[in-house]
Amino acid sequence: EAGPFSFGPVTWDDATWILTSSFIIFTMQTGFGLLEAGVVRRKNEANIMVKNAIDVIFGGLSYWVFGFGLSFGDSYGSNPFCGIGYFFVETSEEHMGIVFSTFVFQLSFSTTATTIVSGAMAERTKLTAYIVFSFLNTLIYCLPAHWYWASNGFLRKLGIVDVAGSGVVHLVGGVSAFVSAAFLKPRLGRYAKNNSFTNAGNPVSSLIGTFILWWGWLAFNCGSTFGISGGKWKLASRSAVTTLNASVGGGVAGVIISFTTKKRKYDVEYLINSILGALVAITAPCAVVKPWESLVIGTIGGALAIASSIVVNKMKIDDPVSASSVHGTCGLWGLLAVGLFAHNDHLENTTQGRSGLFQGGGLYLFGVQLLGGIITIVWTAVLTLVMLICIQRTIGLRMSEEDEERGADFVEHMITIPSEEEYRHTVACMT
Amino acid sequence: EAGPFSFGPVTWDDATWILTSSFIIFTMQTGFGLLEAGVVRRKNEANIMVKNAIDVIFGGLSYWVFGFGLSFGDSYGSNPFCGIGYFFVETSEEHMGIVFSTFVFQLSFSTTATTIVSGAMAERTKLTAYIVFSFLNTLIYCLPAHWYWASNGFLRKLGIVDVAGSGVVHLVGGVSAFVSAAFLKPRLGRYAKNNSFTNAGNPVSSLIGTFILWWGWLAFNCGSTFGISGGKWKLASRSAVTTLNASVGGGVAGVIISFTTKKRKYDVEYLINSILGALVAITAPCAVVKPWESLVIGTIGGALAIASSIVVNKMKIDDPVSASSVHGTCGLWGLLAVGLFAHNDHLENTTQGRSGLFQGGGLYLFGVQLLGGIITIVWTAVLTLVMLICIQRTIGLRMSEEDEERGADFVEHMITIPSEEEYRHTVACMT
Amino acid sequence: EAGPFSFGPVTWDDATWILTSSFIIFTMQTGFGLLEAGVVRRKNEANIMVKNAIDVIFGGLSYWVFGFGLSFGDSYGSNPFCGIGYFFVETSEEHMGIVFSTFVFQLSFSTTATTIVSGAMAERTKLTAYIVFSFLNTLIYCLPAHWYWASNGFLRKLGIVDVAGSGVVHLVGGVSAFVSAAFLKPRLGRYAKNNSFTNAGNPVSSLIGTFILWWGWLAFNCGSTFGISGGKWKLASRSAVTTLNASVGGGVAGVIISFTTKKRKYDVEYLINSILGALVAITAPCAVVKPWESLVIGTIGGALAIASSIVVNKMKIDDPVSASSVHGTCGLWGLLAVGLFAHNDHLENTTQGRSGLFQGGGLYLFGVQLLGGIITIVWTAVLTLVMLICIQRTIGLRMSEEDEERGADFVEHMITIPSEEEYRHTVACMT
Repeated sequence: EAGPFSFGPVTWDDATWILTSSFIIFTMQTGFGLLEAGVVRRKNEANIMVKNAIDVIFGGLSYWVFGFGLSFGDSYGSNPFCGIGYFFVETSEEHMGIVFSTFVFQLSFSTTATTIVSGAMAERTKLTAYIVFSFLNTLIYCLPAHWYWASNGFLRKLGIVDVAGSGVVHLVGGVSAFVSAAFLKPRLGRYAKNNSFTNAGNPVSSLIGTFILWWGWLAFNCGSTFGISGGKWKLASRSAVTTLNASVGGGVAGVIISFTTKKRKYDVEYLINSILGALVAITAPCAVVKPWESLVIGTIGGALAIASSIVVNKMKIDDPVSASSVHGTCGLWGLLAVGLFAHNDHLENTTQGRSGLFQGGGLYLFGVQLLGGIITIVWTAVLTLVMLICIQRTIGLRMSEEDEERGADFVEHMITIPSEEEYRHTVACMT
Repeated sequence: EAGPFSFGPVTWDDATWILTSSFIIFTMQTGFGLLEAGVVRRKNEANIMVKNAIDVIFGGLSYWVFGFGLSFGDSYGSNPFCGIGYFFVETSEEHMGIVFSTFVFQLSFSTTATTIVSGAMAERTKLTAYIVFSFLNTLIYCLPAHWYWASNGFLRKLGIVDVAGSGVVHLVGGVSAFVSAAFLKPRLGRYAKNNSFTNAGNPVSSLIGTFILWWGWLAFNCGSTFGISGGKWKLASRSAVTTLNASVGGGVAGVIISFTTKKRKYDVEYLINSILGALVAITAPCAVVKPWESLVIGTIGGALAIASSIVVNKMKIDDPVSASSVHGTCGLWGLLAVGLFAHNDHLENTTQGRSGLFQGGGLYLFGVQLLGGIITIVWTAVLTLVMLICIQRTIGLRMSEEDEERGADFVEHMITIPSEEEYRHTVACMT
Repeated sequence: EAGPFSFGPVTWDDATWILTSSFIIFTMQTGFGLLEAGVVRRKNEANIMVKNAIDVIFGGLSYWVFGFGLSFGDSYGSNPFCGIGYFFVETSEEHMGIVFSTFVFQLSFSTTATTIVSGAMAERTKLTAYIVFSFLNTLIYCLPAHWYWASNGFLRKLGIVDVAGSGVVHLVGGVSAFVSAAFLKPRLGRYAKNNSFTNAGNPVSSLIGTFILWWGWLAFNCGSTFGISGGKWKLASRSAVTTLNASVGGGVAGVIISFTTKKRKYDVEYLINSILGALVAITAPCAVVKPWESLVIGTIGGALAIASSIVVNKMKIDDPVSASSVHGTCGLWGLLAVGLFAHNDHLENTTQGRSGLFQGGGLYLFGVQLLGGIITIVWTAVLTLVMLICIQRTIGLRMSEEDEERGADFVEHMITIPSEEEYRHTVACMT
């Protein structure tokens, strides 16, 4: 009666919410692209944007072919560890509304998870290798999505709560990013002793990217009610407030940490990482915590993003956009924050009757969240490593030193930096 | 009872869908602007953005004055070739919801059709001439909109299906672009023998523009159900999947074609054109084909966009953004694809009981689509040519050679490229 | 029964409208950022983007702590001059939908008001001072919001009509901008006799910012019906048309004024200011005027924005983005335009049974609008001045001359302009 899924839109009101949210969530790809383009050196700017397009193209293809099916397939054989069904997604006229709007929404999440990794692999990965990686990356993402979100997923049965995916989307993306960055080794000269590495970039571009992500995140978290009818519009409204409040907390943390530790300067990277880290952290608990709690969760998330990126850098793991820290560390923190702060949700039973440690719910929920986090980390790390090794041994993963020096824009795309001559000619014409 | 139109929103749920879609569709203007700004040389960047603003201002003015009326006017005298009524759009409090939300939605389509042409005329058209052109261009667009979409349009009566406008919007825009580019002749030195023309541009900007268009396209195609109630939310959901799948197909085509024909390089222009070409192609059939069919339609669309742009270039017709190919060729392909792939729509009767050749519907629908395409091409080409000749003989169309050399930013807007001196001064201050 | 507010969403349909509008409105922050980044010199680009982030972070914090409460608190003690209640916004599960969606919508307005000022203070304000200012700025905004919009606000009781905030948001922002720009004094060398001040900037960036604001404005004005149910969808649809038509009028004014007064050149700043000025002007009357009236209102708004910015500049008040004129002058015009053009709204009683002078409503409504405008100007000017003096006397407001010369990007954020050396190295590698 309620259609093929135990979740998903059941009315056109829900569909309006789900689809509109999806359309806004896709704008986050523009945000990730600009964020990353602002961090890499000029010679790799176009290349990183292309990689973000590749994430949608090849990640989208594999999600349609097998990703959605492994996540949410409910045919014969679907089990707590893996969905079966909906491969090459298609359905009847009757169920088109529910199945297709759910697919589009989930696809917008899946491509986000893939895109997170592109930044960590920037400036040294062959594009052909990246294409293969982004196609296969869906596999890493879609199983956790099943465990956490499908009605028969084993973590969901245990009671895990990850409203919009601190675990499923961000922890997965962040761990993949960490493993990829470590496996790829640093960019040439990144940790050279004479400190000659120019990490110039374009902070305006990164800030615009951050802004686009910020507003897109509202649809990401609020849309995760999977509808607007019943009590869902109340949870969506709360999610909007907690998401904004968390970003406020993160931003305040970033400003204060930079001011106090960087000689009264306001480091742009710190600010960006703390805002995004806070947004990642609130993604799991957004619908089930209070505004002041989201402020606390976001503040801690912002601080963790900065601290973690310092640690990762000290380990000489070269993650140009700090994806490991922003998405990985804060993704885990978001999962755990549910175990601490979650209130029992009487409207849509998101919490399955449980609440977090600080609300008197005891350690059970915290334990489940921690367990989910650990399993997600291990699964993602192992699978990412296996894929990278396979790619390396077949088509090769890292650009040659010469190519890296020249830059991917020229080597992969035959782009030459806007000719100085033309520029001078123009100036000359004017004077 | 159902209000003034045979289509359009009838409830506030529909209005939410229609208006929200419109707002997102307008963001495509930003996308077109960036796409074009990324293709032109630096000396014409601001000018092309201004032209995109002009499209909304003067195209919007004429659409309000006469465009909407000629398209959808249903007063006395309205006939299969031309609507009458709703000039200087106004209505009663009672019908405000239906009339105004329909107008806004249609306006977002009209300005898109106009904007398509701006890229093809880039770097050599006088701004004053372009202002006149963009005001009059509405006339070219609004009659096909009547033929295809108004309840008494002659092509609609024949059974034509063009869900979101591969024909009405893109084929019209693309043919106008082709005629304009040919009429204007190439930019100075574009096909010079010594190949000295620097077509440098800013690929990052073009890619960002493409991203913005991509997500906007979802609202463009899905919003074209003209509502969300009844079976419309099902068609909208399907449209989202087919639109995304088509872009996946187009992107894959672009990647493979570039890799195989360009010595393992990934040409950014190829990628952009193939993604956009696929989106144009799926625009007509989005609600009436299956996901796998949309993948095929998009793949062919992507390939056609690239092939066509090579042919146009060989003809020495200088269309800087390949608008002729992306919107014209793929627009026609989208129309024809309906004739091949369309399934009979039992939900909202979009297909008037018919289906395409491959679904056993015979050649009738294909024939109608082809006829519609041919009529659209002839109408658009003739009218565009007449307008261009009129403009040329009165106020002049093309910039002087000297002005073209200096660049439109300086000549039309008194913009000087950011002073090198100031830049050097700043650097000096820092060191 | 209808929940805690006399306005606001009461159904999930309304919530969909309110929340989706809010998400789109937040994208205007990206627009303001780019608009401002395009106007300042390169050495202050990142800094101005950071200031826009600060507006959301610290303005958002204070709005949650006290702003929303002072605007819309309806607890014991709430009076015509000031709301009481909802400090540190929180509510019950039952009222979550209404309270939180209203808060998010209002927050998107509040941060807009704050952001307007950042442009006027550009290139010479210490970031630490700006942080304090943006936290406190909420106070300036939230009381007018109460007077105009809360059910017991004294201006509302008098019958004032300010649908989406020409007065509450823009006049407040514009007056704050004017006072701040005057108080801060001009940037170094801005009015030097030898005219050596290079106000280069990046017009493409400003135009993109304008585009983003333009489409966001649709959600801003249409969302201000505070819902979609009942007659609200009709008013929202009308608001979309009037908003677009006003921008058309403004744009036409800008084009004509520039063409006639600037030797047939099309000044980009004129165009931007006239479009935005028109949008500001239609913000108050959007739901209660006819399309052709909005064209008139917008045309006058566009002309006023340009004229006013010339006057402000002649007064040697250095407002780099013309915020005083676009938001201040046109905000006042928008308020007054209601008094002239407003039609009595029978659908939702926005106009409390009254109409404007030109509709035969006499001078009462015009008088109230004028009174509201004057009170708003005086309140904003005085409070802004008090705050600036307090900040100046404690932590200091203006950067040192040396720092201003070096640029805020370097001084506040340790950003060095992308190294010329790296650039040359890259070029060398390619050749």
